Amino acid sequence: MSKIRVAVLGYGNLGRGVEFAVKNCPDMELYGVFTRRQPESVKTFGAAVFSVDDILNHKDKIDVLVLCGGSATDLPTQTPEFAKHFNVVDSFDTHAKIPEHFAAVDKSARDGKNVGVIAVGWDPGLFSLNRLIGESVLPNGNSYTFWGKGVSQGHSDAIRRIDGVLDARQYTVPIETALEQVRQGKNPNLSTREKHLRECFVVAKDGADKAKIEQEIKTMPNYFADYDTTVHFIDLETLQREHGGIPHGGFVLRSGKTGENGETNHIIEFSLKLDSNPEFTSSVLVAYARAAYRLNKQGQSGAYSVFDIAPALLSPKSADELRKEML
Amino acid sequence: MSKIRVAVLGYGNLGRGVEFAVKNCPDMELYGVFTRRQPESVKTFGAAVFSVDDILNHKDKIDVLVLCGGSATDLPTQTPEFAKHFNVVDSFDTHAKIPEHFAAVDKSARDGKNVGVIAVGWDPGLFSLNRLIGESVLPNGNSYTFWGKGVSQGHSDAIRRIDGVLDARQYTVPIETALEQVRQGKNPNLSTREKHLRECFVVAKDGADKAKIEQEIKTMPNYFADYDTTVHFIDLETLQREHGGIPHGGFVLRSGKTGENGETNHIIEFSLKLDSNPEFTSSVLVAYARAAYRLNKQGQSGAYSVFDIAPALLSPKSADELRKEML
Repeated sequence: MSKIRVAVLGYGNLGRGVEFAVKNCPDMELYGVFTRRQPESVKTFGAAVFSVDDILNHKDKIDVLVLCGGSATDLPTQTPEFAKHFNVVDSFDTHAKIPEHFAAVDKSARDGKNVGVIAVGWDPGLFSLNRLIGESVLPNGNSYTFWGKGVSQGHSDAIRRIDGVLDARQYTVPIETALEQVRQGKNPNLSTREKHLRECFVVAKDGADKAKIEQEIKTMPNYFADYDTTVHFIDLETLQREHGGIPHGGFVLRSGKTGENGETNHIIEFSLKLDSNPEFTSSVLVAYARAAYRLNKQGQSGAYSVFDIAPALLSPKSADELRKEML
Repeated sequence: MSKIRVAVLGYGNLGRGVEFAVKNCPDMELYGVFTRRQPESVKTFGAAVFSVDDILNHKDKIDVLVLCGGSATDLPTQTPEFAKHFNVVDSFDTHAKIPEHFAAVDKSARDGKNVGVIAVGWDPGLFSLNRLIGESVLPNGNSYTFWGKGVSQGHSDAIRRIDGVLDARQYTVPIETALEQVRQGKNPNLSTREKHLRECFVVAKDGADKAKIEQEIKTMPNYFADYDTTVHFIDLETLQREHGGIPHGGFVLRSGKTGENGETNHIIEFSLKLDSNPEFTSSVLVAYARAAYRLNKQGQSGAYSVFDIAPALLSPKSADELRKEML
């Protein structure tokens, strides 16, 4: 059987992760990477590199295009644009704009008779699936999502913009006592401050006012003001040595009640502990790329989210094998 | 909008659980319970009771029939039989016989233009889903399933059959150190004995030889011989007071690697902590009853497992609501 030919648009952490992930899938092959940069300037781990300007010339050789751009400016235009020509998968994660993104992708994917799967990854993605399943199985209950421990790129960037800061890394940390209350079925109402704390590792420029930097971080609206935040000043070498990775993860819990009068408690918990946030996200994207290809082979078109895709489509195994080995 | 009319066949722990679960679903109503016993002898929590002999007279008033019989003798014949006339959902859990059960249900459900969802619950069921998703997302890795802490009905029954035993309760207990090794990404090879231990609470008859009972339990092939087993003799009152519930649960873990040379570790963990095994299983059955009804409304027929059903079908919410609120 011929392999599913996957192409990547955008070669950053996520695109590189797709290159790695495809190697673990015997039913897939990486056709190549498309870039807005000069192709010669992009160093991959073996994948061919092409200019995105030529992508339509490759149309018949690509089964699924994995879009590895950012949610802020790339994907809102890229996903609808490329869904006209290719089956696509993206990791769009601006929660508030998902409905309009879905609508835009749905229209152009239908026009092009392609499948576009949006908002794939772990949140949105596998965490969303678990929120949905938890609420559907235990309608009388509460859902909780905790993130971390992991690096928040957005919060790290916010610190870097402060005057006197050379570099910074911010970790979102779930508060263990809050998690424990949920696990014990206590159904607590948790404020923002009670769920997560923020831990910052900051490299200050020579002569910078550290007290002022710390104060500016801790009072920054939206990013830090609503959290208990700790700030550690370290040197650049320590930051690079000890905080060079991009780990992340988190927890989705459903605490629900059943019985004649809701006297029976149940806890469903899903958690991730990821040493590399982008590599894991890429791995999810590749599994959903397989599903996009198969849905399209079945004659489907339009936009999909993880909610709309039968799990069997994610696996290279046949339905018979899955029932025999995994059910 | 009219509600989904659910009926139950078989009113034991599972059937009672369905009666409770439907009450938590505003889009569903319980049409009634069908029984092989004398209907007058079945005491429900309000549900109407009918003889199963009359069930075809109710055909047009039932949207989905939830089959609450046992996997050993009831479901292998009941599910194919009733799938001819109704959309059905069952909790068939004899793993080795799932392929033949699926084939039998598929044939008669297609003949009757109905949908039959088999092997629904948590294992098989939600645990299977997590095994599939874990392996699909992280193909380079290992899967682990641990069960417990929870009551095993089969093992409790096996103890009760021993001469001199009045009553017994057996708990399957996952071994914490093994779980921890998996969580740390060590990918251990675990023997049966290393994954679970078995804890037995036994009420002996007056004058019975306790040492002999204990020996017989610990050496029982298949059930206990391959495990570290502890036996506690207690009195009947203590058994009823402290071991009257049917709790269960467990863990599905996927430990996988990504990166250029598999140097990055990830752990996916799904766990359940259930105060009532049958009430939770019933809650899963009811969510999949909703999906069975909807699939059939879409014109589908045949057998399905949890692998074949898009998660959105489990929720009473619309696709738009789900994307907006939960993605």
